[in-house]
Amino acid sequence: MIGASAAGLRCASRLARLKPAWKVTVVEQSDVFSYAACGLPYVLAGDIGDTEALRRTGDGAVRDVGYFSTVKGLDVLAGWQAEAIDTVRREVRIKGKMGEQELSWDELVLATGARPRTLPGQPDHPRVRSFHTINDVAPLKDRLTRGEIRRVIVIGAGLVGCELAEAFGALWGAEVTLVEQAAHPLPGVLDAETGALVAQALVENDVRLISGVRVESIEARDDSVAVTAGGESLTAELAVVAVGVTPAVELAQRTGVDLGPTGAIRVDERLATSVPHLWAVGDCIELEQVVSGEPVCLPLGSLANRQGRTLANVLAGREDRMPPVAGSVAVKVFDCNVAACGLTRTEALERWADTRSVCVSAQDRPHYWPETKDIALHLVYRSGSRRVLGLQVVGEGDVTKRVDVATQLLHQGAGLDELANLEHAYAPPYAPALDPLAVAAFAAQNIEDGIEACSPEESFEGARVLDVRHPEERKARPVPGGKTTEIPLAEIRQRVDELNGDGVTWLVTCERGTRSAEAVRFLESRGISARYLGGGMRWQILAGKATPAKD
Amino acid sequence: MIGASAAGLRCASRLARLKPAWKVTVVEQSDVFSYAACGLPYVLAGDIGDTEALRRTGDGAVRDVGYFSTVKGLDVLAGWQAEAIDTVRREVRIKGKMGEQELSWDELVLATGARPRTLPGQPDHPRVRSFHTINDVAPLKDRLTRGEIRRVIVIGAGLVGCELAEAFGALWGAEVTLVEQAAHPLPGVLDAETGALVAQALVENDVRLISGVRVESIEARDDSVAVTAGGESLTAELAVVAVGVTPAVELAQRTGVDLGPTGAIRVDERLATSVPHLWAVGDCIELEQVVSGEPVCLPLGSLANRQGRTLANVLAGREDRMPPVAGSVAVKVFDCNVAACGLTRTEALERWADTRSVCVSAQDRPHYWPETKDIALHLVYRSGSRRVLGLQVVGEGDVTKRVDVATQLLHQGAGLDELANLEHAYAPPYAPALDPLAVAAFAAQNIEDGIEACSPEESFEGARVLDVRHPEERKARPVPGGKTTEIPLAEIRQRVDELNGDGVTWLVTCERGTRSAEAVRFLESRGISARYLGGGMRWQILAGKATPAKD
Repeated sequence: MIGASAAGLRCASRLARLKPAWKVTVVEQSDVFSYAACGLPYVLAGDIGDTEALRRTGDGAVRDVGYFSTVKGLDVLAGWQAEAIDTVRREVRIKGKMGEQELSWDELVLATGARPRTLPGQPDHPRVRSFHTINDVAPLKDRLTRGEIRRVIVIGAGLVGCELAEAFGALWGAEVTLVEQAAHPLPGVLDAETGALVAQALVENDVRLISGVRVESIEARDDSVAVTAGGESLTAELAVVAVGVTPAVELAQRTGVDLGPTGAIRVDERLATSVPHLWAVGDCIELEQVVSGEPVCLPLGSLANRQGRTLANVLAGREDRMPPVAGSVAVKVFDCNVAACGLTRTEALERWADTRSVCVSAQDRPHYWPETKDIALHLVYRSGSRRVLGLQVVGEGDVTKRVDVATQLLHQGAGLDELANLEHAYAPPYAPALDPLAVAAFAAQNIEDGIEACSPEESFEGARVLDVRHPEERKARPVPGGKTTEIPLAEIRQRVDELNGDGVTWLVTCERGTRSAEAVRFLESRGISARYLGGGMRWQILAGKATPAKD
Repeated sequence: MIGASAAGLRCASRLARLKPAWKVTVVEQSDVFSYAACGLPYVLAGDIGDTEALRRTGDGAVRDVGYFSTVKGLDVLAGWQAEAIDTVRREVRIKGKMGEQELSWDELVLATGARPRTLPGQPDHPRVRSFHTINDVAPLKDRLTRGEIRRVIVIGAGLVGCELAEAFGALWGAEVTLVEQAAHPLPGVLDAETGALVAQALVENDVRLISGVRVESIEARDDSVAVTAGGESLTAELAVVAVGVTPAVELAQRTGVDLGPTGAIRVDERLATSVPHLWAVGDCIELEQVVSGEPVCLPLGSLANRQGRTLANVLAGREDRMPPVAGSVAVKVFDCNVAACGLTRTEALERWADTRSVCVSAQDRPHYWPETKDIALHLVYRSGSRRVLGLQVVGEGDVTKRVDVATQLLHQGAGLDELANLEHAYAPPYAPALDPLAVAAFAAQNIEDGIEACSPEESFEGARVLDVRHPEERKARPVPGGKTTEIPLAEIRQRVDELNGDGVTWLVTCERGTRSAEAVRFLESRGISARYLGGGMRWQILAGKATPAKD
């Protein structure tokens, strides 16, 4: 096993259990290994006391060389780097402080992981850092503790970038500027509508977000670092580059192992590479996306752990396979929970012109339940086949439950009608009687019925707005711009004549999109052209595009 | 539409939207209708201020006759009882305070709901009550407010009985005795192992739980009520009978509509009854259980809402159907969250002799995450086909997410291997890298590998116990009985000779069952017979069978 990553160690440990007579050796270049890397931002943030907690098992044992030897029966050679693999003689040459040696093998697993991407011209300087391994935490935390960092520039608003923006800002009170090349945060995970909600969460928590600009230069000085982005010059004590990772495939390439189109190692469902007796797991491989059928490289801890177990089963001679993946992810951005699975609308539109999506504002529990919280859903699907392609859920409420369920539906290739018919465990403390996931499917079904929704990102300007809320709701959360026609839904049957006329298309709005969709159906049945604002005024407020009235 | 239940009103409202030219009339015997009945126990408990909150929509409108007329375009005849249906002339005779009338119809829907079951010889007296409708709340709450109820006997520890036990005890400080005929609480939902955890949660919250006994008599007096159960005489100011509901099918029977084996109305997937142009939805019908294929009558609000929508689609001429159900439910019992889907082991064993189950103690988030909480899983499956049959999850942590995901897998007919390969949205604030659901599947796969687990309900007495925990863990959570051999997992390879000998089968235990399962695999590979305690000592403590040491 080359690499003591999550995938590598899980594979090796299980293999040693399944095949106690086999000798399982793990070669690892670092001295410190086997820790919960996904927890690192939370050590920086102070949620978790120290990095040691991430190295321990649930029962408090530190996962060092001795642990893997005595508890797992593994031989871990830490501080050794694999230099070359000879696939004919089945040997690997490894190099460490004490020199070089050759190890022979029957089966070899590449678990070489990934390394952080760097920017072109990125200086190699202590003020310009990546955040990837356990060794990246202490230098940052030391400087923060000593009060040497007042301003931080985080480059890249991906999963790690957003976590870091929270960590630096919330705990350390640092002024955080987050620079993102795409138009909104979490661009690989969210579309513009849900991205706007995360942007607003960042801004509300005093993160300065600069999106849609490229970093042009990074200049490190003795006492500061200067970043130029979109023509603007930013200065801070520290810049953290969090622009994703790239699979570590040099050893594989030197060994003649095929890479896939993503640049990661190509494997089959049994995790076999193109070279016999060579296998690969973890962040260095690519997998098949279950919706698109295309290869993807997803450096996620959940997938790495599964791959390790699957490969151990395969190597032990059992039936097992690593199926395609929906790419489900979650990330916390301050009080805003974010989760998603499948394809974004942007990704889906590259493949299918009949891609559609719908935005829904909902509550994660019944509206009458005291602790109910808002969630916002963006459902992506195809109009022709009605197949569900992806889901994004953002908000203070319970988002991962909905994405975990949708993940199962993506794996089934389910359509809108299956999603609408969702069965769930219902009781008021946990969920509404009709789950928000089903409500999102209803909204999509309505669109396919001709009840047109417009995106919460669309501008109101020039639109003839019909507000079907109660006066108190309108007053509390007014429509920006102000020129709206106001007819509560309860009065629309009687007052429909007020809306007739000049061939205008009404933009109907309400609190969350439900009543306005009902109004559109009614108006269309009377021959009045109308569409409704997806997600209603609640979404506008969460996105910072409308402002609630002061009490 | 006969009956303004959740299913009936949802069906009628959607039908009026889909077919605005149709006249949709709802006949409802009660004056107060359309409220969130599942919220009623929480009004009693004080979590929800008053029953009015349950009658309001999310935007604050009260769902009365006027609301359904102006907003939904429905004609609701409240206070009218349907007396007889003439299926030839297509008329229904209804009776109210103002006399009788005949209504003609093209399609008729029965949404007659269910009514609370009563016990044989149950007196009709204000001190002996059921808890089913909105009108059942005020009399109880008034008496509680006036301090007239110090002691309550709740008969039946089903979903409502458990909710009531919490409501009376936690908010009002009443002495609650909960009497259950089965051996443990929630008998239709849980097996003995998970039932023991709920029993302990009740006991820890000062509910006196008397299970495994029948109620022999209920005698109401002016100032008290006496209940005899299992030979014991109990006295209180109030007895609440919560022994489930029975479908209200008298009108259907009089009309010649076929009932199914459960006694509820038989419908097909389009919700059509045996009589043409007669349809049925809600708590009065039976559905197909997706795992067993057998009819079940499940009075759940989540299913009722879906049926209403489905039938509206069918009546409007659209393609839709109500698929079989997994019977997913959730209930909160004090701080103990409970959710389940599919068949219990007891139910499954009646059908399949190769039914197996496994208990797993887990944490809902990574062990290093500060807010991680315990959950206990009981997974039921078949040994031959490895098909998953059901899941029960109980604990302070996030249980409904796991059951909602498992529900989707039951609908797919998934096996242990699909469950083990579960994809989920992972980040430390939400879930561990390997979800507890997958861990439960691993445990079941291990059993099929020959790593035998014993039920947490099994007695230790006479067993040769091997404890593979660290000394501190053993001290903090000692094994009851005390006669245990103690070898930490890390030392077991070196000290295995201490375990050889007299053909004994070791019962291996640890904290949650993971390390002990590893130990069993190792011991068996060395020819030493062993099995492990499912769920480990943590489960024993949650079940009140072991006691943690005092600090």
